[in-house]
Amino acid sequence: MRMYDLIVKKRNGEALTKEEIYWFIEKYTAGEIPDYQVSALMMAIYFRGMDNRETLDLTMAMTYSGDVMDLSEINAVKVDKHSTGGVGDKTSLMLAPLVSSCGVCMAKMSGRGLGHTGGTIDKLEAIPGFNTQIETEVFKELLEKNGIALMGQTLRLAPADKKLYALRDVTGTVENMSLIASSIMSKKLAAGADIIVLDVKTGSGAFMKEYKDSLELATIMRWLGNNAGRKVAAVISDMNQPLGSAVGNALEVKEAIETLKGGGSEQLRELCITLGSLILTLAGKAANEDEAKKLLDEAIESGRAFEKFKDFVRAQGGDVRAVEDTSLLPLAPIIEPVASPVSGYVSLLKCDEVGMCSLVLGGGRAKKEDDIDLSVGLMIEKKISDRVEKGEPLAYIHAADKERLEEARERLLAAYGFSDVQPEKPVLIKEILN
Amino acid sequence: MRMYDLIVKKRNGEALTKEEIYWFIEKYTAGEIPDYQVSALMMAIYFRGMDNRETLDLTMAMTYSGDVMDLSEINAVKVDKHSTGGVGDKTSLMLAPLVSSCGVCMAKMSGRGLGHTGGTIDKLEAIPGFNTQIETEVFKELLEKNGIALMGQTLRLAPADKKLYALRDVTGTVENMSLIASSIMSKKLAAGADIIVLDVKTGSGAFMKEYKDSLELATIMRWLGNNAGRKVAAVISDMNQPLGSAVGNALEVKEAIETLKGGGSEQLRELCITLGSLILTLAGKAANEDEAKKLLDEAIESGRAFEKFKDFVRAQGGDVRAVEDTSLLPLAPIIEPVASPVSGYVSLLKCDEVGMCSLVLGGGRAKKEDDIDLSVGLMIEKKISDRVEKGEPLAYIHAADKERLEEARERLLAAYGFSDVQPEKPVLIKEILN
Repeated sequence: MRMYDLIVKKRNGEALTKEEIYWFIEKYTAGEIPDYQVSALMMAIYFRGMDNRETLDLTMAMTYSGDVMDLSEINAVKVDKHSTGGVGDKTSLMLAPLVSSCGVCMAKMSGRGLGHTGGTIDKLEAIPGFNTQIETEVFKELLEKNGIALMGQTLRLAPADKKLYALRDVTGTVENMSLIASSIMSKKLAAGADIIVLDVKTGSGAFMKEYKDSLELATIMRWLGNNAGRKVAAVISDMNQPLGSAVGNALEVKEAIETLKGGGSEQLRELCITLGSLILTLAGKAANEDEAKKLLDEAIESGRAFEKFKDFVRAQGGDVRAVEDTSLLPLAPIIEPVASPVSGYVSLLKCDEVGMCSLVLGGGRAKKEDDIDLSVGLMIEKKISDRVEKGEPLAYIHAADKERLEEARERLLAAYGFSDVQPEKPVLIKEILN
Repeated sequence: MRMYDLIVKKRNGEALTKEEIYWFIEKYTAGEIPDYQVSALMMAIYFRGMDNRETLDLTMAMTYSGDVMDLSEINAVKVDKHSTGGVGDKTSLMLAPLVSSCGVCMAKMSGRGLGHTGGTIDKLEAIPGFNTQIETEVFKELLEKNGIALMGQTLRLAPADKKLYALRDVTGTVENMSLIASSIMSKKLAAGADIIVLDVKTGSGAFMKEYKDSLELATIMRWLGNNAGRKVAAVISDMNQPLGSAVGNALEVKEAIETLKGGGSEQLRELCITLGSLILTLAGKAANEDEAKKLLDEAIESGRAFEKFKDFVRAQGGDVRAVEDTSLLPLAPIIEPVASPVSGYVSLLKCDEVGMCSLVLGGGRAKKEDDIDLSVGLMIEKKISDRVEKGEPLAYIHAADKERLEEARERLLAAYGFSDVQPEKPVLIKEILN
């Protein structure tokens, strides 16, 4: 087999065979095919696409390009969750202990973030001592013992995807549905869970700006997971404004804790209850989603969900005092309100721009090597459809210094739009595929 | 400027600016842009194309990526010629001395061949002692003295094109009109001639199989040359069967010499007279093409063209005795006829397959490093529309050993088709753009 022939075949609009796809992934992972041929193939795929069968073959080839986690010795239904990413998305922090407290084994595999805030791992590191760099054996022990554990993706998990994604990222070949879906699903399949729940974000702050693209991605990912023998449910949730109020690592941990205790963000609770009810139903812990929702509400109100979170933190070396008293989490030296320039209703809150504020403050990474300031971020007070009076705070900025404060303030003000008539509140859960 | 942005821009169907194209070519030539980004851009160009302005900018950027030959000190109109390549294409060998003998300065820049036979340089090396690896200063002296010289392309001539072509060759991105045209024309423009004559081949033995593609390529190349301030004419000539009879390096030299002396191949003479008349007219040596053709016929019949060829060979170190007595040229140890299996008319002579026969015999290169056997090849006796009786020779194979003889024989027989009714003789000159 010659890589040249595969490139020309795809360029001419033909489907690659299973053998060709497996061969290419194997040889590329082994360093036997040069990047310049692979990027040409990726661009040909961008233009010609891949059919479902090809996408499944690519996904499975990447899944088996490295270690595949074997969780079979744990005698429970294992669940993993993936979000396509958005601004203020602290869902995993709350969802994992919530469903675990209802008897589901939450085996969460996470990455670090590249973008406006850190990933779940970065966020959890705002809790002093929290360790996600655990070995597979420890991960399994914790699952067995607590029904919840979280580990950072090892380099041995779907190495083909890592290599391919890094190349696509610099060659303008990220934006293809088959490539996106296979990249996400190969990692999730290699992580070994029985049930995979997907939170596909849609809107200005999401990777997928258009609803139809989000729906297509969710549909193909669910299909891929099902064809790999997993149970998969997907939610398409709004990302035209940040999720909840907090944007920034420690701030998001705080909001997740508050919501887990029954207060916090209504939106975050709604999303976690929705995702959680899909999980409990698929896992056979509830007969239907209404019953599941009751169980989840009860886990929050009774304090069991929060207790599970503390078990989780303690088991991975985190300081539980910082969870019980969130004032012990990293705190920025400067906290200042951003006053509304007008009276009226918030009609717009450009989500990607809010993300940029967090990046400007130092809460995210522009490059992989960048350090993250876990303390900085924003607390959004006024969101779309909210009434605000002139001079009233739209948000509070948590900053490390005055200069970045002012830059973030300017950006944030530019992200807001106002109107005299009250717009409708955006619907959070746009679609459920189960 | 970031290469990533250029890739995405082209991928999205936008035109690149002149600044972007020059920047990319400069940085790529300097080794500051990785191949994997360039191959992605090439594939995006394959799908999105380039408009004329972009193609011209790319051509000029590549032209000026290295040395540009300055022939201005030679007080004559300088002519160069390019063929897109075909089977049995010995046109340059005859055309150069022919037009030079009519007072035109032929400054020919040539390459080695990759394919069924060698390039013009390889063919000329069949003449013992002939040296094409001459310095620019020597090239200019010879032009001044004899009005004819030929040199191999130096690595300093259009280095961007060399690098880009090598990458396109292994990434399935050769087949784009703008990229092909800019590749050819950048080399020709850097070679410094005032008049460029293009022989664009069309048919089964040509790079361009379809007539409309050949016409498009000729049209854009002429436009590029004109916009670079050069006079350009183009001929589209048939390559559905080999040109003339000889296919193979020494054999082609012999046929070119015979035709230059007034015998040899009618087809070769027709093509050279056509190309030559365009040159003489553009160079102001004749008032019109009819007058030019008379001059060229007279140069052949009088022996002046052949004398010029001998001057040319002598000036570049070649042994003129091998030109005067072609039996001194490299000769294969085995010469055997290929007998026709039937009586009838030749209806088909698959040109690419005839080329493969020459390659099989060792007359061409499959890889750049391969050695060429200058003595081997084919003499085609029967071409499309010719009558043949069963057992009569279709061709003579000149081979180095029996094994390759038999492989070539089998291939050659498979390349022929026969019919009971006489097909029309293919038209050689399909179009003239002047």
